[in-house]
Amino acid sequence: MSLLTGEHCLFGQWRRGTGSTFHASAAATGESLATEFHEATADEIATAAQHAFAAAAEYAAKPRVVRAAFLERIADEILLLGDTLLERAHAETGLPMARLTSERGRTVNQLKGFADLIREGSWVDARIDRAQPQRKPLPKSDLRAMLVPLGPCAVFGSSNFPLAYSVAGGDTASALAAGCPVVVKAHPAHPGTSELVARAIANSVRAAALPGGVFSMVQGASHAVGKALVLHPAIAAVGFTGSPQGGRALCELAWQRSVPIPVFAEMGSVNPVFVLPGALVLRGEQIGEQLAASALLAAGQFCTSPGMVLFLSAHGKPMLAKLAELFRAAVPGTMVHESIRSNFDRTLQQVREIAGVTVHATATGQGTHCKATSAAAMLFTTDASFVLQESRLREEIYGPALVAVRCDSYGDMLAVAESLQGHLTATVHGTDADFVEHAGLLAILRRKVGRLIANGVPTGVEVCSSMQHGGPWPASSDSRCTAVGSRAILRWARPVAFQDLPNDALPDELRDGNPCGIWRTVDGALGRD
Amino acid sequence: MSLLTGEHCLFGQWRRGTGSTFHASAAATGESLATEFHEATADEIATAAQHAFAAAAEYAAKPRVVRAAFLERIADEILLLGDTLLERAHAETGLPMARLTSERGRTVNQLKGFADLIREGSWVDARIDRAQPQRKPLPKSDLRAMLVPLGPCAVFGSSNFPLAYSVAGGDTASALAAGCPVVVKAHPAHPGTSELVARAIANSVRAAALPGGVFSMVQGASHAVGKALVLHPAIAAVGFTGSPQGGRALCELAWQRSVPIPVFAEMGSVNPVFVLPGALVLRGEQIGEQLAASALLAAGQFCTSPGMVLFLSAHGKPMLAKLAELFRAAVPGTMVHESIRSNFDRTLQQVREIAGVTVHATATGQGTHCKATSAAAMLFTTDASFVLQESRLREEIYGPALVAVRCDSYGDMLAVAESLQGHLTATVHGTDADFVEHAGLLAILRRKVGRLIANGVPTGVEVCSSMQHGGPWPASSDSRCTAVGSRAILRWARPVAFQDLPNDALPDELRDGNPCGIWRTVDGALGRD
Repeated sequence: MSLLTGEHCLFGQWRRGTGSTFHASAAATGESLATEFHEATADEIATAAQHAFAAAAEYAAKPRVVRAAFLERIADEILLLGDTLLERAHAETGLPMARLTSERGRTVNQLKGFADLIREGSWVDARIDRAQPQRKPLPKSDLRAMLVPLGPCAVFGSSNFPLAYSVAGGDTASALAAGCPVVVKAHPAHPGTSELVARAIANSVRAAALPGGVFSMVQGASHAVGKALVLHPAIAAVGFTGSPQGGRALCELAWQRSVPIPVFAEMGSVNPVFVLPGALVLRGEQIGEQLAASALLAAGQFCTSPGMVLFLSAHGKPMLAKLAELFRAAVPGTMVHESIRSNFDRTLQQVREIAGVTVHATATGQGTHCKATSAAAMLFTTDASFVLQESRLREEIYGPALVAVRCDSYGDMLAVAESLQGHLTATVHGTDADFVEHAGLLAILRRKVGRLIANGVPTGVEVCSSMQHGGPWPASSDSRCTAVGSRAILRWARPVAFQDLPNDALPDELRDGNPCGIWRTVDGALGRD
Repeated sequence: MSLLTGEHCLFGQWRRGTGSTFHASAAATGESLATEFHEATADEIATAAQHAFAAAAEYAAKPRVVRAAFLERIADEILLLGDTLLERAHAETGLPMARLTSERGRTVNQLKGFADLIREGSWVDARIDRAQPQRKPLPKSDLRAMLVPLGPCAVFGSSNFPLAYSVAGGDTASALAAGCPVVVKAHPAHPGTSELVARAIANSVRAAALPGGVFSMVQGASHAVGKALVLHPAIAAVGFTGSPQGGRALCELAWQRSVPIPVFAEMGSVNPVFVLPGALVLRGEQIGEQLAASALLAAGQFCTSPGMVLFLSAHGKPMLAKLAELFRAAVPGTMVHESIRSNFDRTLQQVREIAGVTVHATATGQGTHCKATSAAAMLFTTDASFVLQESRLREEIYGPALVAVRCDSYGDMLAVAESLQGHLTATVHGTDADFVEHAGLLAILRRKVGRLIANGVPTGVEVCSSMQHGGPWPASSDSRCTAVGSRAILRWARPVAFQDLPNDALPDELRDGNPCGIWRTVDGALGRD
């Protein structure tokens, strides 16, 4: 802990802030933690953004192996922080050490994964259409295109993943991999964790002899800090993970700029679960068990936490009984910040007041937790007709809550599915026969989500090439993008075409003879020669 | 012409409009043309959008060969319209028959190109990561992802390409190819051309036995029609080619929706041309000739028309003299609509009033054209210092105008380049030695544009895999997208991941054994087996 100074990281340098101060609090006890942090001022934010801009061209022009080694170095530096990092994250967020250890592993693996991706190099989608000087009626020029970095990116740390979606998380890793400098707005629920990770990145910038502006991090607990960052003209794109309100506000700010910029906001989701009749009869209890574990994991603080389960009431008893049993037995979880816990309470209260909603089970397990952050799980029941009437029932309850929706018929399920807004995921439990018989449900859900899961749970987002973590609004602001997996890099890049440029003036990826050895589409044919 | 009825095309049916009426006018004479068209009413627009929505799932599920054949049929039906189409387009826009004939060829080739692209099938970017049930600490699920259509798209016909960027133009062709129904808002400068092409599409919808909602077209001369279309909840994305004001207004509308949608607006560009010293000395006259031809083509009514040329004043005399000679000799061109010509006049007047700007040459050639649409070319000169002072000089003059910018030094060129906003293209003329010596200029321009051209002209946008027609704001609303070339299809699709789905419940593209024979990334390796 002695490492912490409370400073901002501005273009690789550590600067004591001049704005008003705030402290982190220990999630499990509510106690204020020692280090004093500062709200970044407009000047400090401008300094970070301007240096990011100044560094952009040099960083973009670095060979991809340099960028790859830089990402790997960040991963190593994070590991070097050892227990200091995990303990501070544990203190600030209340997340268990085992979870934080695995989250650190994921963070490190994401950095290494993007290093591998850019070292391999084909992600730039190189396309070459060679000249045809003899073509009639007009000769054809030589045209070559590839993805190039967008420029400085602002990244907002998320509250629920203090490592994997925060300072050196997926957004930062993918933006740095793409060749974009990053300015992070640290999440005020874990400023110390953020500072430690920022030190790992700043050390890596220095070790790689990159321009300091490649990475900055500013602290702040007020909306003013994020707003100033998004409005700064040097910023070219924004990554955000958080609430629909926060995401929408950032998108609207971005559109108020004289030069609007893209905001990639991942804003959470209800992640509805549909249990088809065959599966419900065959393994209702088991599904209830699986589902309760997923909904209660980390006090429901996942974008992919399941918030709604739909089933035919005629066969639902065993599943519902198991869910109720496990919700009642649940030990109250610690939420990462008291503001998140108070939002959870407020939302529960709103849901309880909706006509047709019953509290079916409440956690009775004894925790030893701080009252301000401790969240007792709650299982609601209602009928499909009420869900169709009340859109609030189709919105996220962020925290350990689940709405069990009794359906009279498959038609009810289809109607609810059709009424859904965009979500990150939907899950369907079914036998092989169920899937054949209920293909219509899957067809509806495909339009509504980014990821469709069979016989599983939505939590546990694999980091891989085929992951899609993003869905139609309001799950994310741009459903064509993902926040997790290798495609995440595509958010931070745009194609540029080069027409008739001398070979020496082209980027390596587009030169004759394919010196990078990457996959390229040449005259329409994909190949690596 | 007898084919024209003035009706809207609503889900494959032709309906007489009930809104107020307007007529097309002949661009070359200003005469009102016979057919009466109607402003689409809110009801008519809603009907089109709702039917598009109703058709979306069925159309998306059609085998790609069905969609490919449908696109080819549209191409054939357009050709079947024969001279009727070309003559009406000529009357409405004043564009020469030869130009319209080649534009029709481009339109047909775009449709066929997208048919080929989807028949080949690899554009869906299929990615498969197979299950690893034995993985520790957690088993890995089977994950498979591909691009799926976004849903109903609204397409705004552009004024300057009555065929290739209008009813069956690039936006419509790429959206239909992606599997999205389309509702076109016809451009009021060529409603008859639009109706003829819509008939070709409606015939093709019927011939392919597709749901009628796959294609609709509404007429309208007021902003209200486009606004109602963009705000309709059934619309999932928008394609637009036109002015920065129009594009920005649509983007803002899209953000006012409770569910915001992407707007792919291509909003034009100055397309600056930089002439480096070696090339200027070696072939200044020739560059002047090439540039004048490009700037005067089709009365400057191209998004890629060059509007600014920068050169070292010390060596610029021969180039400037040639430009002046050709601008003076230019025959006045016919603009496609009198409103466009009056905008051109207004802009010229504004530019003339800017300090440091001189009218260097004005077209004196005799035309036989209608006063209301006839545009005389104008060549301005100014100095780099004035361009740096006055942002208006860095904005588009839509029409046959060119600003020649004298630079005292290479530093002037760099400063102007750095001051530029986003553009579709930039062109650099140089010898091989020039390119080596002035690499810094190219590095700046790469950040500013979507396409960088050496020793050519920006007009003449090749339709191919490596074309990028889109650039940083305000050239386009999303610089990550292109309006021309095969990548244009990517605007209308988003990835969906399928986790542990039974093989039979997967789309063909993701099934075991690769039944579609497309390129897929399986466990990180690209292949076609």
